[in-house]
Amino acid sequence: MHPLRFTAESSSNGMLERDFTVGDVPGVLWSPASGAVRAPLVLMGHGGGNHKKSPAMAGRARLLVTGCGFHVAVIDAPGHGDRPRTPHDDQEIAVMQRAMAAGEPVGPIIVRYNAHLAERAVPEWQATLDALQRLPEIGADGPVGYWGLNMGTAIGVPLVAVEPRITAAVFGQHWPDVLAEQAKLITIPIEFDMQWDDEHIPREAGLALFDAFASKEKTLHANGGRHKELPRFAATSATRFFTRHLN
Amino acid sequence: MHPLRFTAESSSNGMLERDFTVGDVPGVLWSPASGAVRAPLVLMGHGGGNHKKSPAMAGRARLLVTGCGFHVAVIDAPGHGDRPRTPHDDQEIAVMQRAMAAGEPVGPIIVRYNAHLAERAVPEWQATLDALQRLPEIGADGPVGYWGLNMGTAIGVPLVAVEPRITAAVFGQHWPDVLAEQAKLITIPIEFDMQWDDEHIPREAGLALFDAFASKEKTLHANGGRHKELPRFAATSATRFFTRHLN
Repeated sequence: MHPLRFTAESSSNGMLERDFTVGDVPGVLWSPASGAVRAPLVLMGHGGGNHKKSPAMAGRARLLVTGCGFHVAVIDAPGHGDRPRTPHDDQEIAVMQRAMAAGEPVGPIIVRYNAHLAERAVPEWQATLDALQRLPEIGADGPVGYWGLNMGTAIGVPLVAVEPRITAAVFGQHWPDVLAEQAKLITIPIEFDMQWDDEHIPREAGLALFDAFASKEKTLHANGGRHKELPRFAATSATRFFTRHLN
Repeated sequence: MHPLRFTAESSSNGMLERDFTVGDVPGVLWSPASGAVRAPLVLMGHGGGNHKKSPAMAGRARLLVTGCGFHVAVIDAPGHGDRPRTPHDDQEIAVMQRAMAAGEPVGPIIVRYNAHLAERAVPEWQATLDALQRLPEIGADGPVGYWGLNMGTAIGVPLVAVEPRITAAVFGQHWPDVLAEQAKLITIPIEFDMQWDDEHIPREAGLALFDAFASKEKTLHANGGRHKELPRFAATSATRFFTRHLN
């Protein structure tokens, strides 16, 4: 069992930012400036090619930390951010880039590579959650949510399927291949984002993944617009979803 | 041009309720208790078999009035609430009740009857809006929204299609027959509610109506559950939608 080690600390505008490692996995824990207040925890999974402190992660963390008083943790996915790439990572990324350059569909490559990353990431998330729950401001019995779109969904769905400590999740923007079978095991409340005019993920694919969740409470938010045009209000809606379920 | 006549007034818990008539159409105007404050107006359309002061209308009005400081107006649809039924209304309702009793699909009857009601209701709404805009607390140039599900959508879609004063709308829970062609004329921001497991409106039908809106900003909210199981948070989400667009 790896302990959580804090490696850096800063704060700005009411938000405390603490870098940490659990084993060789680097992460960041954002908390209310007061720091030590016991509060719900939201784990966030970043998108493909991105990292734990990308603007999307920092922006969503701010909504949850300063808006709701929650703690938010993000770790770098395998091969992402401050983590080394394996030869397999390099190879898959090269295949993806060639497909993009040739204007060929990247969906099947992303699905395959993300499934591989999820196998590595799920146990890392579980070890990270073990370590985070030993912090007094989080605790072993506090509410835990998960929020991740794109690759964050590819890693989050198998994580939530095996992790009973997570009791509410926001997913979206992924293909149902691989994930639909895992989604059928999930019964916690779900909010699911898709883009109605996504040029990468066919509409039927997004609807099929949403349909697969066994959750009694699940809501699909389908926004007009292309893949990258997810509106800002999707994030404020997710924040309210977590407020409703983790408080 | 019919003037608006107030016929009764009461108030409770921060909400002023004024009954009114415009011609022979009875309505209710809910406002912040202070009454005379200039604020945006939301027109709400009630569901089939229901009326202007049904619990759903009063509950949504309370969210908008005490939560956002808006004015909210509802009128009884033709043949509903305090309004007389025509022989045609009686006949269509009898046909609908026979179909329900026999366990036959009611969708085609509802679609047909609602289209008939909409033809009568659209000019009534326009006259009501004319009259409401002559009140100083609403005014001729203030923002106006429309919120109606079920029959409220069957009346609201043709209304919004021809009424440029309405600049944001919440619709949902209806078949696309008749309405899809009108929805193609609508370009204002839309929030659209459907129930993912609706036993009356097939999933594909709900998705097709959402798809038809020409709006650049449109969001589908599809909630797990049957027709009558629309979750309460759909109403709070609609309230935030109007806050975003009418303020």
